[in-house]
Amino acid sequence: MGKNILPEGNTVGKWFLPEGPNSDIVLSSRIRLARNLAGIPFLPRAEPKDQEKVLEMVKEALNEQRFLEEGYFLTENELSPLKLEFLKERHLIPLDFVRSERKRGIYIKRDETESILINEEDHLRLQSLTSGMDLFSAYEKIENLDNTLSEELPYAFTPEFGYLTTCPTNVGTGLRASLFLHLPGLVITKEIEKVLRSLLEMGLVARGIYGEGSETKGNLFQVSNQITLGLSEEEILEKVTKVGEQIVEYEKKAREFLMRDFRLAIEDKIARAYAILKNARLLNSEEATNLLLLVRLGINLNLIKEVDLKTINILLILIRPANLQIYYNQEMEERERDEKRASLVRSVLSNG
Amino acid sequence: MGKNILPEGNTVGKWFLPEGPNSDIVLSSRIRLARNLAGIPFLPRAEPKDQEKVLEMVKEALNEQRFLEEGYFLTENELSPLKLEFLKERHLIPLDFVRSERKRGIYIKRDETESILINEEDHLRLQSLTSGMDLFSAYEKIENLDNTLSEELPYAFTPEFGYLTTCPTNVGTGLRASLFLHLPGLVITKEIEKVLRSLLEMGLVARGIYGEGSETKGNLFQVSNQITLGLSEEEILEKVTKVGEQIVEYEKKAREFLMRDFRLAIEDKIARAYAILKNARLLNSEEATNLLLLVRLGINLNLIKEVDLKTINILLILIRPANLQIYYNQEMEERERDEKRASLVRSVLSNG
Repeated sequence: MGKNILPEGNTVGKWFLPEGPNSDIVLSSRIRLARNLAGIPFLPRAEPKDQEKVLEMVKEALNEQRFLEEGYFLTENELSPLKLEFLKERHLIPLDFVRSERKRGIYIKRDETESILINEEDHLRLQSLTSGMDLFSAYEKIENLDNTLSEELPYAFTPEFGYLTTCPTNVGTGLRASLFLHLPGLVITKEIEKVLRSLLEMGLVARGIYGEGSETKGNLFQVSNQITLGLSEEEILEKVTKVGEQIVEYEKKAREFLMRDFRLAIEDKIARAYAILKNARLLNSEEATNLLLLVRLGINLNLIKEVDLKTINILLILIRPANLQIYYNQEMEERERDEKRASLVRSVLSNG
Repeated sequence: MGKNILPEGNTVGKWFLPEGPNSDIVLSSRIRLARNLAGIPFLPRAEPKDQEKVLEMVKEALNEQRFLEEGYFLTENELSPLKLEFLKERHLIPLDFVRSERKRGIYIKRDETESILINEEDHLRLQSLTSGMDLFSAYEKIENLDNTLSEELPYAFTPEFGYLTTCPTNVGTGLRASLFLHLPGLVITKEIEKVLRSLLEMGLVARGIYGEGSETKGNLFQVSNQITLGLSEEEILEKVTKVGEQIVEYEKKAREFLMRDFRLAIEDKIARAYAILKNARLLNSEEATNLLLLVRLGINLNLIKEVDLKTINILLILIRPANLQIYYNQEMEERERDEKRASLVRSVLSNG
């Protein structure tokens, strides 16, 4: 039931492990490139046969360039609702892709650091994910993938506008650079509103971690560039990185302030979260996420030492509803999931 | 600062230890007798000099009968607001006594099982407390105290109305029999409303554990007879006992039902409560009470085995704001109390 789409010996994508720079605050960096094929109608007007043509061309190109053997190529008829949800929870597809009626496909490299969506909003969406604050190396990888594919595929490009895209906000470089941030300090001190407002003024945008329209829950935020036209790729990467570094500084200051002036209240919150995770018999997804994020903060503040960030990051993915079911290779109702989730978290943290 | 009013070697009143019958559900039984002295105006009309006279007469009677050496006699000028609150938390005085402007006093036997309020609502209120469901032995003790005092004091009594009291609902035997009940099963299954309504029909009344006007918080209830005229002492005791036994049966059934049909949810609630108590850095009085009562239920359901009922019952008293301060012999602001309370509970339960 889909265990085959899990990379062997690796329970979550490599990009979600806390290995990159500043990964106490920046969970990961993501680059997305929008590309379309010349001579085929863009998606809002593409017929099913056009969509199939795109799928064939991309698959062929991936095959030619030996990408297929490094990952998985799946089309929509191979993707059950559960598998789609699983991929969404792993940030490999957006909500629109789940809901779409089109002939669509996805290519995922085994370690989940690179992927390509076919017939989402554009003919191709190339995605690269890395751990921590590291947009430049994410970009390097995707540039490589993009260049290789461009040898096989006729991209729609004009010297005046650059890469042509379905949505005008993506025209130009077609590049969107995002950072996934964990900002409990700024949320608790209520500084976050100020930070989010100043982002807008700088042409950046903050969203929930599951993209457009998703709520910013559990102190997780996704910060991206708003426009892609008029700036070079390098300028976009530099801008988002610079702002990201600024936010990291603010978050560190907020944490220092909390530890200086509200240490006991923070210790209390974190000790309770850890205790509940180690003892609860039922845990829903939202509560588990919030508690794990508090423990994550506790580890970063040196208040919890028996468990490491990697374990918490892995749990943050595995406890999500579809991931949990695929992990246990078993379809489960909500109540059963809550029980299994609690039991998974309990056993992992007791051995932590 | 008042450690002297704590019985030596005994951290809470003997009546609060889980030694009596059905003490998994019935925390304790209480008997109160209202008595007034003939020839002295009843309290609403008594002048300060009348009030002093009552105090003197009672103290003299206690001395004559060698009660003074078995306990403490304290007048209102020896009772700081903190000590008054301490006594209220231990169910030795009611709220009215704390707020009163009268010359008033209290006699407390060392083990807190017997006490006498002087110039509360009546000249004398005799109180006897026992552990568990045991109104008859509580009554036996108080009858003894009452008889002995009546040798020294001229009680106001008429053959027609019995003992005369300030409030008409106490006229007659002047006896109020109460049970302190812990009814989480009935509360969780929402059967409690039905039970409380049927009590009223039988002439009984349910209140919060701190008497009239106090809320029924944390699944604790006080059930007493409503009227004292027209029934003999024995009839009152039998009636309250019979109803109490009925409630105990309902509560047992509710617990069985929960353990059969909602075991996991109950285990979850109890495991979380225990984990929070063992790990929190800050605990307010209300939360601590609710969590301790859940652990109490957990012990009674055999879900928690490392700690016993006695420990929980003692904590339920010691964590109350005034008791906590007197236990630590230190006046504390709310925040400091929350910290000390958490630390006391943590250390007791970790060694439990």
